[in-house]
Amino acid sequence: MEKEELLQKILNGEIKIYQIENFTKTPKEAVEIRREAIQKLRNTNLPNIGKYTIDPNNLFGKNIENMIGAVQVPMGVIGPLKINGNYAKGDFYVPMATSEGALLASTNRGASVITSSGGAITTIFRDGMTRAPVLRLNSSRDYYKIIEFIEKNFDEIKKEAEKDSKFRKLIKIVPYLLGRNLFLRFVFDTGDSMGMNGVTIGTDAAINLIESYFPNIESISLSGNLCTDKKSSAINLIEGRGKSITAEVIIPNDIIKRKLKTDSKTIIEVNYRKNLLGSAQAGSYGFNAHFANIVAAVFLATGQDIAQVVEGSQGFTTVEEDTNGVYFAVTMPSLEVATVGGGTKIETQKEALGILGLSGGGKNSGDNSKTLSEIIASTVLAGEISLIGALAARHLAKAHIEYGR
Amino acid sequence: MEKEELLQKILNGEIKIYQIENFTKTPKEAVEIRREAIQKLRNTNLPNIGKYTIDPNNLFGKNIENMIGAVQVPMGVIGPLKINGNYAKGDFYVPMATSEGALLASTNRGASVITSSGGAITTIFRDGMTRAPVLRLNSSRDYYKIIEFIEKNFDEIKKEAEKDSKFRKLIKIVPYLLGRNLFLRFVFDTGDSMGMNGVTIGTDAAINLIESYFPNIESISLSGNLCTDKKSSAINLIEGRGKSITAEVIIPNDIIKRKLKTDSKTIIEVNYRKNLLGSAQAGSYGFNAHFANIVAAVFLATGQDIAQVVEGSQGFTTVEEDTNGVYFAVTMPSLEVATVGGGTKIETQKEALGILGLSGGGKNSGDNSKTLSEIIASTVLAGEISLIGALAARHLAKAHIEYGR
Amino acid sequence: MEKEELLQKILNGEIKIYQIENFTKTPKEAVEIRREAIQKLRNTNLPNIGKYTIDPNNLFGKNIENMIGAVQVPMGVIGPLKINGNYAKGDFYVPMATSEGALLASTNRGASVITSSGGAITTIFRDGMTRAPVLRLNSSRDYYKIIEFIEKNFDEIKKEAEKDSKFRKLIKIVPYLLGRNLFLRFVFDTGDSMGMNGVTIGTDAAINLIESYFPNIESISLSGNLCTDKKSSAINLIEGRGKSITAEVIIPNDIIKRKLKTDSKTIIEVNYRKNLLGSAQAGSYGFNAHFANIVAAVFLATGQDIAQVVEGSQGFTTVEEDTNGVYFAVTMPSLEVATVGGGTKIETQKEALGILGLSGGGKNSGDNSKTLSEIIASTVLAGEISLIGALAARHLAKAHIEYGR
Amino acid sequence: MEKEELLQKILNGEIKIYQIENFTKTPKEAVEIRREAIQKLRNTNLPNIGKYTIDPNNLFGKNIENMIGAVQVPMGVIGPLKINGNYAKGDFYVPMATSEGALLASTNRGASVITSSGGAITTIFRDGMTRAPVLRLNSSRDYYKIIEFIEKNFDEIKKEAEKDSKFRKLIKIVPYLLGRNLFLRFVFDTGDSMGMNGVTIGTDAAINLIESYFPNIESISLSGNLCTDKKSSAINLIEGRGKSITAEVIIPNDIIKRKLKTDSKTIIEVNYRKNLLGSAQAGSYGFNAHFANIVAAVFLATGQDIAQVVEGSQGFTTVEEDTNGVYFAVTMPSLEVATVGGGTKIETQKEALGILGLSGGGKNSGDNSKTLSEIIASTVLAGEISLIGALAARHLAKAHIEYGR
Repeated sequence: MEKEELLQKILNGEIKIYQIENFTKTPKEAVEIRREAIQKLRNTNLPNIGKYTIDPNNLFGKNIENMIGAVQVPMGVIGPLKINGNYAKGDFYVPMATSEGALLASTNRGASVITSSGGAITTIFRDGMTRAPVLRLNSSRDYYKIIEFIEKNFDEIKKEAEKDSKFRKLIKIVPYLLGRNLFLRFVFDTGDSMGMNGVTIGTDAAINLIESYFPNIESISLSGNLCTDKKSSAINLIEGRGKSITAEVIIPNDIIKRKLKTDSKTIIEVNYRKNLLGSAQAGSYGFNAHFANIVAAVFLATGQDIAQVVEGSQGFTTVEEDTNGVYFAVTMPSLEVATVGGGTKIETQKEALGILGLSGGGKNSGDNSKTLSEIIASTVLAGEISLIGALAARHLAKAHIEYGR
Repeated sequence: MEKEELLQKILNGEIKIYQIENFTKTPKEAVEIRREAIQKLRNTNLPNIGKYTIDPNNLFGKNIENMIGAVQVPMGVIGPLKINGNYAKGDFYVPMATSEGALLASTNRGASVITSSGGAITTIFRDGMTRAPVLRLNSSRDYYKIIEFIEKNFDEIKKEAEKDSKFRKLIKIVPYLLGRNLFLRFVFDTGDSMGMNGVTIGTDAAINLIESYFPNIESISLSGNLCTDKKSSAINLIEGRGKSITAEVIIPNDIIKRKLKTDSKTIIEVNYRKNLLGSAQAGSYGFNAHFANIVAAVFLATGQDIAQVVEGSQGFTTVEEDTNGVYFAVTMPSLEVATVGGGTKIETQKEALGILGLSGGGKNSGDNSKTLSEIIASTVLAGEISLIGALAARHLAKAHIEYGR
Repeated sequence: MEKEELLQKILNGEIKIYQIENFTKTPKEAVEIRREAIQKLRNTNLPNIGKYTIDPNNLFGKNIENMIGAVQVPMGVIGPLKINGNYAKGDFYVPMATSEGALLASTNRGASVITSSGGAITTIFRDGMTRAPVLRLNSSRDYYKIIEFIEKNFDEIKKEAEKDSKFRKLIKIVPYLLGRNLFLRFVFDTGDSMGMNGVTIGTDAAINLIESYFPNIESISLSGNLCTDKKSSAINLIEGRGKSITAEVIIPNDIIKRKLKTDSKTIIEVNYRKNLLGSAQAGSYGFNAHFANIVAAVFLATGQDIAQVVEGSQGFTTVEEDTNGVYFAVTMPSLEVATVGGGTKIETQKEALGILGLSGGGKNSGDNSKTLSEIIASTVLAGEISLIGALAARHLAKAHIEYGR
Repeated sequence: MEKEELLQKILNGEIKIYQIENFTKTPKEAVEIRREAIQKLRNTNLPNIGKYTIDPNNLFGKNIENMIGAVQVPMGVIGPLKINGNYAKGDFYVPMATSEGALLASTNRGASVITSSGGAITTIFRDGMTRAPVLRLNSSRDYYKIIEFIEKNFDEIKKEAEKDSKFRKLIKIVPYLLGRNLFLRFVFDTGDSMGMNGVTIGTDAAINLIESYFPNIESISLSGNLCTDKKSSAINLIEGRGKSITAEVIIPNDIIKRKLKTDSKTIIEVNYRKNLLGSAQAGSYGFNAHFANIVAAVFLATGQDIAQVVEGSQGFTTVEEDTNGVYFAVTMPSLEVATVGGGTKIETQKEALGILGLSGGGKNSGDNSKTLSEIIASTVLAGEISLIGALAARHLAKAHIEYGR
């Protein structure tokens, strides 16, 4: 169809906006026509949304549908940030994309504190992506026979759950019973991918296998919300999801004074009254100042799933007196990251990962995603140090005023 | 300084990456040099990050520091989505930016269900942006005198908290006592801005006033985490933050059958076992399927603060039997949105708001942000309808496989 | 009917065990026959259950049905415990009933620490008993008209809710909307009674009034669980229920050393790692060591509702460095107590209240229940001080071994 | 010392109230003198507290200190309650002690519904008592070596943890890391005892062993609150503590109509709006109507630890449509019970257990406590059925009025 005819049919509703790719040679053409249609339909101009360098032909059906162009979010870097991780080793410049003024300046200051203090030490203490379908039993008594079946046939179930992938490995299946609802929380190692789609496919295969042995028992939903994906939850805080990781640093008193313009006693007090007591009183799962800001900015720059900022915001900042300074740590029980799949292949995001030397899979499957998790946790540490420092020095409102926001 | 000299000094560490703007005529030049420096330092190429149309000269110090370019995220639209709101009225095309395949296709399907069913009805039932500093008392007994002071002098405190803005209005101050910690939750009307920065400034002014009357009582942190900003929390679930809003629709049985390929009984059961029981068992504040996905995508497209996806993910999806169909609703107690300030001025984001007719402030202060909240809640409703429908029809894993993810 | 005949009919099932009072002259006779029946039916002996001095004739229909006798729980006292409350003033001996060895010894030690340190200071910072029915609306949009109705007719609703009592006063009605469910949290002042039954009656009357104006809107449950009664909940932690109260004391270093065999630094650290971090990681609403033990023991001794130990267990223990010692405080947001009604009239419980000088109503309505709440909070403070002290001195397991448990 | 002299010394403060047993021949004498002292000190009479048949000589140091007598709480029975458990089989009369009028009448009605419907089916799906000390590491990096040590030496640790008991068995140790705090959640099988004291002793021994290998790592508190004992917590809701158990029954429509004066649709709706939505909005871990009431009453009657009503109150009531009626279930993830130890040996409590045929240890260790948990869960089911039924029939306030409360 000619472009003009196609446009006309969209405008008068004969062709829906989601059907345009059916009538063009390439997805890119569809993007241009769809944007033009929206401009006309809404009597508006979209010149900037129409200027992009990412390739729609690679995106269609993998990353987006109904595309009209791209949003641009300013990206910067903070650093150098020294990390002494088990995977991330050295000085890093970390890409962050945001529209929140002062965020990179503040995080950069925290990075400087960490680097001056010898670098962040990181510890991944748990790793596994989850999916938890819910089965409806006839009676809660059915629990015994299903659990027995799973225990006896774990190897077969595992084989089924991994059959379409050489990277995905089923670690365990944890059952939770509620009335006659059986939730089975499948935990997988997913290598360098974040893994949600893979574990969904693998879990579906495993559940089909289990169902085939129990004709009267039905899987009601492939996700039963005990996963828990993109929703705050105690189960992720306690049992983890993705990477569970800490990043820590001991900051000497002279650096606190020089770089943060405050002292160890005040920092500890701010963290205690705000991050511990305040969050306790709020019924919060985020005993921290602003994990979410840093997670969101790095996730956005590097092509992670930004809805998973929800889980990434959960966790703990602890600040404790130490010899000649403070022990400062962040603990993130559910940090979900990837260097392959999802948005990591889009041109700008791929380049951002390239700044970290992490585009694509690692030498050993999983190495790159682990490295990335260590970098993010260390950047979060930088963000917490700087904001807690600013609050201790009573600079927060002043910073907002200065930045004219 | 010449560009080459400047670059050299950055590379050998004489000039830090955050100082470059001090040595260039414009922020834009600094962006180019910084990106070049990062390319050399990390031996990588950033051609796409370097191609952007947003203007760094407008961004520096307002939206970002240490800028090197922009990330591009594919943007599309879903619609038409019919909304019968108190503010949003009509058929909308909603911009969403994401790299998660199937998200727009799925939400578009939900929008089609809503529109065919007559449109979404929305109800804003609470509105207010909060900031909660924590004061250290000498004894919890001091509580009485401070509360008495606040009650007696509320008008003066209010005047102080509003003095720098004609839009910000202090509604109330709610006290919470924990040992000798007094948290004062300030609640403001912030018009069309999301309001965090403003309420921070206003609360700071108010606290300074209060402190001036109580020389022995100290404000320890301007944010005491009862706000609660960018962290999951029960206080936001219960008392709200930003807009508290519902969106609902009654879907007739024939539309469920035709568009969702399932039936009312199955949809109700999926929602019950997954979103209610599953989330209850998980200790979650998100009794829903994937609010976060839709909130994140619209937030990103329209220049909202994406770290606030955390609060946006909290809330409830309810599906109930109704005459000849189902009553389907989403309830979002803490949806924080803006049409002015923050990232809403950036060129692509501003254009996205333009698609909704919502760029800038409303005729009456607050109208546009309220309209936006109704559109987002309705889009979230579309997302829930489609995903719950897909789970009911057991199409989820299949969708993931089809989209090759 | 003759006793033997009656017994025979019970044994052969002609008369049910709950019907016996219908066939005896007094409730006391029914108790004796029922106990005899159970002895025969279960072939067991209940000589001790049968020995009691409380009067069944006063209990039937008010405190219990199907009575067979009484359980005896050992009761002791701790003290003297010095309290400098707004209501409780002086040295108290506090009755506690328990079967947990070491509990009174430990609490007594804490009381001695408090008394030696000059006494506990208490602050009641909120007071109100709640009941929250749930109404089903036709649409969430109905919210506006109901809220408008309540605001405009608050005085009439209040009158209706108070009509059967001279003590109960309606303070406010707080609305919460979830889909088309409207929860109305009624908050009452209930004087010296705990108030649950009264607020249930008053709320029922108020709801009937509201329903009469909205024929299409139905009250589904007189309790919608936002009350929240006898279930852990964030809403009680945040908004309180019954009395919200703190008790605090500054303990000098020499007393810590002499009486607790430890030092301020260690006590602070135990409280920090256990009560703050541990409870945060556990997703707990009890940031304390064992509020529940003390609350349970005093509640049992004084005729409170022991199921409300659930809410009484929620709250915070804070320990902070202070000049020459530590500031030690407990904060209990939802402590529900009474000196009239419920179990407070039973002979032994009445005597226990008498030890505190608190049997029956106060001079001003509410004085006695406030005094009791201050005494309980101070006793809880004693319990926390002693247990945290024991953990700091690493004596816990030793104590368990010594007491042979 | 003569009784009069001793009394005089107590009254003038020479001898403290906790020291009296040091000066008397038997604990019983001390009780009498202490009560007399309190009577004089407080100018009050305690005739009923002084009348008891339980033997103080057995209680001192095991169940109470500072004893002055006993509280009497009226005890009744409900039943017959038919249970088809794995352990509890048959018709039971369940002892309950309470001062809350209508509770036994209501529970008895629920029992009648269950029995008429064929009996409750129970499923214990998890079992283990926990204790979770917190260790302070030097760095979170120490995590690896401690976990490795525990894995390699699990058998030795297990042996140490079990050495003083032939019943206690260590099942597993689950680690949780938060900054440099390592929480180790020890899970034990404790046979027929509730097990808290035993697991405290066993965990202490195990921790001493671990510490001996890591001289720089210190156990800060033998309980780090991840246990979680007597505090509401998500970890118990999710991972369980004590017995995790369900009780369920299918209630035919005619029984709903005849005995509960309502219908299946209304019951399901009350449970949905109140127990699911209301509790979700409240941020509650108790998605039920009043577990706590029933748990408290049976715990009190049978000598359980009544402070553990806190955990017992957590859990879920689910009501679902079923062929010709409703499926009604309660799920209790953390029900902690015993038939040996604690208060189970006191004369009246022992007799109450005798009514159930459960006094003392089972044939196989653990059988009796499992039976008891099935009986309690079934009684809780009865309580939920009756109260939900009353709310559905709108009888609650009426019941309160009738019972004159």
